[in-house]
Amino acid sequence: MSTQLISAREGIITEQMRIVAKKECRTPESIMNEVAAGTIVIPANINHSQITPIGIGKSLYTKINANIGNSTMSSCPKEELKKLHTALKYGADTAMDLSTGANINEIRGTIIANSPAPIGTVPVYEALSRVEKSEDLNDELILDVIKGQAEQGVDYMTIHAGLLIAHVPMAKKRMLRIVSRGGSILAKWMQFHQRENLFYTNFDKILEICKQHDVTLSLGDGLRPGCLADASDEAQFAELKVLGELVVRCREAGVQVMVEGPGHVPFNEIEMNMKEEEKMCHGAPFYILGPIVIDCAPGYDHITSAIGATMGAFHGAAMLCYVTPKEHLGLPNAEDVRNGVIAYKIAAHAADVALKKPGARKRDDEISQARAKFDWEKQFDLSLDPERARSMRAEALAETNSEEQAKEGETGNYCTMCGPDFCSMRISSEL
Amino acid sequence: MSTQLISAREGIITEQMRIVAKKECRTPESIMNEVAAGTIVIPANINHSQITPIGIGKSLYTKINANIGNSTMSSCPKEELKKLHTALKYGADTAMDLSTGANINEIRGTIIANSPAPIGTVPVYEALSRVEKSEDLNDELILDVIKGQAEQGVDYMTIHAGLLIAHVPMAKKRMLRIVSRGGSILAKWMQFHQRENLFYTNFDKILEICKQHDVTLSLGDGLRPGCLADASDEAQFAELKVLGELVVRCREAGVQVMVEGPGHVPFNEIEMNMKEEEKMCHGAPFYILGPIVIDCAPGYDHITSAIGATMGAFHGAAMLCYVTPKEHLGLPNAEDVRNGVIAYKIAAHAADVALKKPGARKRDDEISQARAKFDWEKQFDLSLDPERARSMRAEALAETNSEEQAKEGETGNYCTMCGPDFCSMRISSEL
Repeated sequence: MSTQLISAREGIITEQMRIVAKKECRTPESIMNEVAAGTIVIPANINHSQITPIGIGKSLYTKINANIGNSTMSSCPKEELKKLHTALKYGADTAMDLSTGANINEIRGTIIANSPAPIGTVPVYEALSRVEKSEDLNDELILDVIKGQAEQGVDYMTIHAGLLIAHVPMAKKRMLRIVSRGGSILAKWMQFHQRENLFYTNFDKILEICKQHDVTLSLGDGLRPGCLADASDEAQFAELKVLGELVVRCREAGVQVMVEGPGHVPFNEIEMNMKEEEKMCHGAPFYILGPIVIDCAPGYDHITSAIGATMGAFHGAAMLCYVTPKEHLGLPNAEDVRNGVIAYKIAAHAADVALKKPGARKRDDEISQARAKFDWEKQFDLSLDPERARSMRAEALAETNSEEQAKEGETGNYCTMCGPDFCSMRISSEL
Repeated sequence: MSTQLISAREGIITEQMRIVAKKECRTPESIMNEVAAGTIVIPANINHSQITPIGIGKSLYTKINANIGNSTMSSCPKEELKKLHTALKYGADTAMDLSTGANINEIRGTIIANSPAPIGTVPVYEALSRVEKSEDLNDELILDVIKGQAEQGVDYMTIHAGLLIAHVPMAKKRMLRIVSRGGSILAKWMQFHQRENLFYTNFDKILEICKQHDVTLSLGDGLRPGCLADASDEAQFAELKVLGELVVRCREAGVQVMVEGPGHVPFNEIEMNMKEEEKMCHGAPFYILGPIVIDCAPGYDHITSAIGATMGAFHGAAMLCYVTPKEHLGLPNAEDVRNGVIAYKIAAHAADVALKKPGARKRDDEISQARAKFDWEKQFDLSLDPERARSMRAEALAETNSEEQAKEGETGNYCTMCGPDFCSMRISSEL
């Protein structure tokens, strides 16, 4: 019974650390040292046999997560598997199964069995699905759910243990109160029972289970702001302080830990948020949701949040949880997953390039060289979404004035944006 | 014969300044003072009778421009008018007609007559369309084109007068040389004739025409980088230095002026680029294209560039030229225009919120309040793209498990993302 963290502290370089080192162009020793320090986590449950391990930490390439999973209103195992495959195809590094509807266990089992990427969950969802109402949650039930999921092979779990009963009045002052599903459920439970958060009071027992299967804890931000008006407020930072204390307890117990972050945050407050987390949570990898930088663009929140995510990663976030265009509107389908993943690949890559991570710009230089040579096929191959690039060029060619032009354009040294006579690439190649 | 700049210097508050002041919640005096200083421009050709003036300057709300116009390969006046209407409907503040194909004059005339927004052009395109090859461009022709367009009512013109013959060898060292259409045409012309850039040598005559019709000059960056590898290089800053000198000449002549900027720039270099422009160009409003922050996402360059545009506006850019998803692939159609405009409304608004411009966050707070109340209609009304938000919610409802649920969901206090039992907004409203 060991974890990556315990091994690292003992000076042992595990197979997982070696794989991460290779992927990240780093030495196994440097990975081991950062795992020991807690600035890198490698979420890899000992029961997730298909896993290809990845490392999450600000010194590594920025990772992205795709949330999938059904709701009580829609979707089935087959549809969720399709979303998983879409997410992995376009480059998600991890996926979270956030199912709250029917067949929770079956969907999770199918996803874990089919995923080489680490899988995360939010155990309170399954717990709630097993009772009539949120008031019925109890100590035994949540530990039973966590144990069951750990045995099933879940690599990391979001636990909302930092939202305490003392924080509830702070949340009530907000414009949007609590927008985290887990956070709202727990707040209601605490208020009803007038008892402290049961994830907090059972934290040592949770750590025991996590240690046994090397489940990485992802400390959930139940009080993340749900609109600009609530950003960076008293409630948010009161919870973050508790998360920092829990980070210490995780590490003492030999359990790997990362911390989740906001939410909706104005662009100018993102840097401060990243720095505060790093300080208050002792360098634990920061796993942020967006943040969304304006509230008024439903239908485009993959964009509003990719802007925030780039800024967040640039200032130290280690993993970005995607937001799809359906955010605030409905459950994403496979096409929404695709759009969300690509927007976040862009954000992660933009930050990695800006931070000059080793080799980060190679792909950009290669596609630019292909552009100079009018090598369309190579440009498509090097694109984050080759099908989209290909279909857009085809669409533009189909809209040309004549079939002859379209045919010529297909192989020609120009595109329909400028046409042959005004193609700057062509003209300047003649200089 | 006067211009906004000349009037402002004489202490005259024009009708245009009053309109701008009202829109921006500012005093007419402060607008006049900034126009006099050259930190705000109001592009409003005296012959563009339909215009509703706007101000462009970093102390004002961030503006966005949509490029429309045909190429030699596609589109017609009707299609371009459709693009104009789409751009204006979704909130473009100005539009540039970049037509290079058939009916250039007719298209421009139609666009000016139908646009309350300022219209910009790049006169070298028309000039080139009037000759066989770029070598045939001559002094008389370019002045004739500029005069013709000024008389027609063009509000601002991009003139690539800063790219000098001494810069051409610098550009040849680059991975993508020259990606500006105007820049590449002029470089070829200079190399062929071994003569200085004719827009530079004719600059005083150009100023004379602009002054006569109050055409604002937009000093084009013919050497903007076309890939990350070429960003912030010798060529780019050599041209910027010349643009700074031309700014002084414009102001001396009483001609309003703004400066155009890159292009492709890594996220970490954007702040420096904004500051350099402000310094080297004496506070002239900076009008930036993107910048695109990674090269490898064709099909999604509205997103790669909205990220850069937000950062640019946050650090002082006054106007953002949109990039559509078709960038690098083909001529945008009306749907691409829509996607480009919304991505840029997001960028501009995110920066305005971050810079705490007066009243900038009002819309966000209102939509968040509507969200708290499950007032779906109000949320849609306050969205940057109400139709998209509406259709996405409808799509999600159509994908629910049963018709009954879909019907309930339509009016219900939840969405299909979480469903009724897991709706954090609903749960936390019960606290």
